[in-house]
Amino acid sequence: MVKSRQWLLNAKATGLPTIEGDNPTFKLVETDLPEPKDDEVLVKLTYLSNDPAQRGWISKDADPDRLYVPPVKEGSPMNARGLAEVVESKSSSFKKGDTVIASTGWSEYAVLPAKQLQPTPDLPGGKGKTHYLGALGLTGLTAYFGLTEVVGTTSDDTVVVSGAAGATGMMAVQIAKNILGCKRVIGMAGSDEKCKWVESLGADLCLNYKSSSFEEDIKKALPAPDGFANVYFDNVGGSITDLMLNRMAKYGRISCCGAISNYNNSGDATYGIKNWFEIIIMRLQCKGFIVLDYMDKYPEAREVFRKALEDGKLKIDEGEQIVKGGFEDVPKTWLQLFSGGNTGKLVTAIQ
Amino acid sequence: MVKSRQWLLNAKATGLPTIEGDNPTFKLVETDLPEPKDDEVLVKLTYLSNDPAQRGWISKDADPDRLYVPPVKEGSPMNARGLAEVVESKSSSFKKGDTVIASTGWSEYAVLPAKQLQPTPDLPGGKGKTHYLGALGLTGLTAYFGLTEVVGTTSDDTVVVSGAAGATGMMAVQIAKNILGCKRVIGMAGSDEKCKWVESLGADLCLNYKSSSFEEDIKKALPAPDGFANVYFDNVGGSITDLMLNRMAKYGRISCCGAISNYNNSGDATYGIKNWFEIIIMRLQCKGFIVLDYMDKYPEAREVFRKALEDGKLKIDEGEQIVKGGFEDVPKTWLQLFSGGNTGKLVTAIQ
Repeated sequence: MVKSRQWLLNAKATGLPTIEGDNPTFKLVETDLPEPKDDEVLVKLTYLSNDPAQRGWISKDADPDRLYVPPVKEGSPMNARGLAEVVESKSSSFKKGDTVIASTGWSEYAVLPAKQLQPTPDLPGGKGKTHYLGALGLTGLTAYFGLTEVVGTTSDDTVVVSGAAGATGMMAVQIAKNILGCKRVIGMAGSDEKCKWVESLGADLCLNYKSSSFEEDIKKALPAPDGFANVYFDNVGGSITDLMLNRMAKYGRISCCGAISNYNNSGDATYGIKNWFEIIIMRLQCKGFIVLDYMDKYPEAREVFRKALEDGKLKIDEGEQIVKGGFEDVPKTWLQLFSGGNTGKLVTAIQ
Repeated sequence: MVKSRQWLLNAKATGLPTIEGDNPTFKLVETDLPEPKDDEVLVKLTYLSNDPAQRGWISKDADPDRLYVPPVKEGSPMNARGLAEVVESKSSSFKKGDTVIASTGWSEYAVLPAKQLQPTPDLPGGKGKTHYLGALGLTGLTAYFGLTEVVGTTSDDTVVVSGAAGATGMMAVQIAKNILGCKRVIGMAGSDEKCKWVESLGADLCLNYKSSSFEEDIKKALPAPDGFANVYFDNVGGSITDLMLNRMAKYGRISCCGAISNYNNSGDATYGIKNWFEIIIMRLQCKGFIVLDYMDKYPEAREVFRKALEDGKLKIDEGEQIVKGGFEDVPKTWLQLFSGGNTGKLVTAIQ
C-alpha cells in the first residue's frame, strides 16, 4: 500500500481559484492508494504540466453538457497531465523505471491502467522529456493544428498571435514564421521583456498589451487598407480579441484556441466582445477547436516537429520554464498562469 | 430639366437617425436634375426598398477602410434601392414606361447610367414586381446563400433564425424548412403575433424574444444534450446571439448575416458578447458574409426560387409589407425597421 499526497478539488471555482481561506478551491490530503491490479501500473509523478484549460474543468458555472472533457468532481484529485516514473508494473507494456506521460492528476503517486500511459521515446539532441508536456506534446500540437487544419495558414498570410509568450503562443509564432514561412508574424505579450523574447523566437514584431499605447500600436502594426491581419491565432479572448476584430483583413480567419483573459471571470465580470459586427462586414471566420479533434493527425505533426528541430527551426528549450518545488506548492505554481508569471510552457518539477 | 425632391444625408448618425431637431440625420431638399446624356436614363421612383444595412452606410463611427460599400457622403442623397419607371431614355436597352430596379437613392427622380439598371421580367402567377426588392431580390438571395454556401445547411440540421419576421429572416425560415427540408426550424421574433406568422410560413416553432421567459424558452426549445442547434442564421447580434452561443451543438455553424440590435448603438452602448468561449469549447464556426460575394451564383438561386414558387413552397406575398406614403415620409417609414414596426419586407410605395 502506497501513501500519496493529493490536491483535491474542494470547491468549484467562480473567480480566481484559492488555496487558503474559507472553503478554498483546493485542499491537500494524504490518501492510501490501492495496489495495482493486472494491466495497471503504479507511477510516481516527476513533472507536472500546467495548463490554462484546467481552469475550465473546475468552473462552477460550467454546464457539463458543454464541456469537452468531464469536469473534475468536488472531492476528487485535480486533473492534470504529468511526466511520471513507473514504480511498479502489472503490465507487459511498461517496466519499473520507465518514464511515461499520463493523466496523473495532482497526486504524488497514481495507479493507472497501462493503456492510458504514453511512452516517451528519447528526443533528438538529448532534449529533456518534459517537452512531451509542452512544445512536443499537446501544447505544440495545439499551435500546429490551430494554424494549419483550423484556418489553413499559408506563407501569404500576416499572422497575429495573442498570448505569444505562453506555451501555445510561442509555438504558434515559431510554426507560423519558421515552418510555414508566413509573410509577417506579430505576437502580443504582457511585458517588454516577454515581447523581446517572442521576437527572438522569430516574430517580426511583438506588442506589449499592457502598454498604454497598445491600441495605437496595433493600428500602426496592422495598417489599413493592406496591412490588416489575415490570420489571428487567439489564446486570450476579451479586450485584445475585440481590438483584433477591428484589424482583420477581409475574409480573415480567427483560430479560436483559448480565452485565458476571462477564465477567472463569470457573469457581469466577463468581458463582452463589442466588435462582433466586424465578422459580418469583413466576412471573417472564427473557428473554435480542441486539439483532441485532430488526434489522427498527431503523427504527421510530430514528424514536422522532428524535422524542424533537426533544421534548427524550433527553439524549445528556451520556451520551457521549469519551476522546482515541493508537492505542497503545486496549485501556487499553476496559478502563475493567470498572473502572467510564466514565459513559455510552465512545468512543475516535483522535488 | 426635372425638379426632384431628395432626402440628403445631413449629418452622419451615432444613435437612432433623426429627421427633426438640431442637426437632423436627414434633410429634405428640392433640386434640379441634369438632362440624361447618351446611355443614361431618367427614372421616376415608384417603390423604395428599406434595409437595415443602410444604417451602416451613414454611421459616424464607421471606418471607411472597413465598409463593403462606399459610405454615403454628407450632402448627398441617401443611398437606397428602388423600383422605378423609365420616364426618358437615351439608351437602346430601356424605353419609356419600363420598370427597372436601380440604386435610385431617396430621390423622386434620378438620372442613371443604363448599365446600372436591372430589368424586371414578369413574375409567375402575376406576382408584383416589388418582390424584386425583397423575397426575389437581394434579401431572399441573402437568406439563400447564408444558409447554403456560407454554412452548408442540410436536412440533418436543426436551424435557428433570429429576426425571423424580418425580410431576410422570413425567407431563411422558408428556405430552411420548405426548400432544404431541415429537421427543425426555430424562429425568433419580437411579438406573439409575429411568431404565429413565422410559424405559418413553416417554422416548427417561433419564440418571442421580448417574453420574460425567453431565456428559458430557448433552453426548452433546444435541450441538452442532443437538441442543440446545428445552424444559427443570425440577423440580430447582441444579447440574442449571446444566448444562442450557449445553445449551439458541437461543431455548430453560425451564419453571421446582420446585427440589427446594435446598429443604432456605439461605444459603451454596444452590446458585448460574453459567451465567446463557447466558440472554443463547442468548436463553433462563425462566418460573416455579404450577399454581393455570391453574385456569380445569383442565377442558380433564382432558378431555385422560381421552382419553389411553382411548387407552392414559398409564401412571398404574405412577407411583403407595403407602406403607402408621400415622399416626405420616406425616412420615417425606413425607421420602422429599428422599432420592430415591420413584418417581412418593408417597402415604401411612393404616392
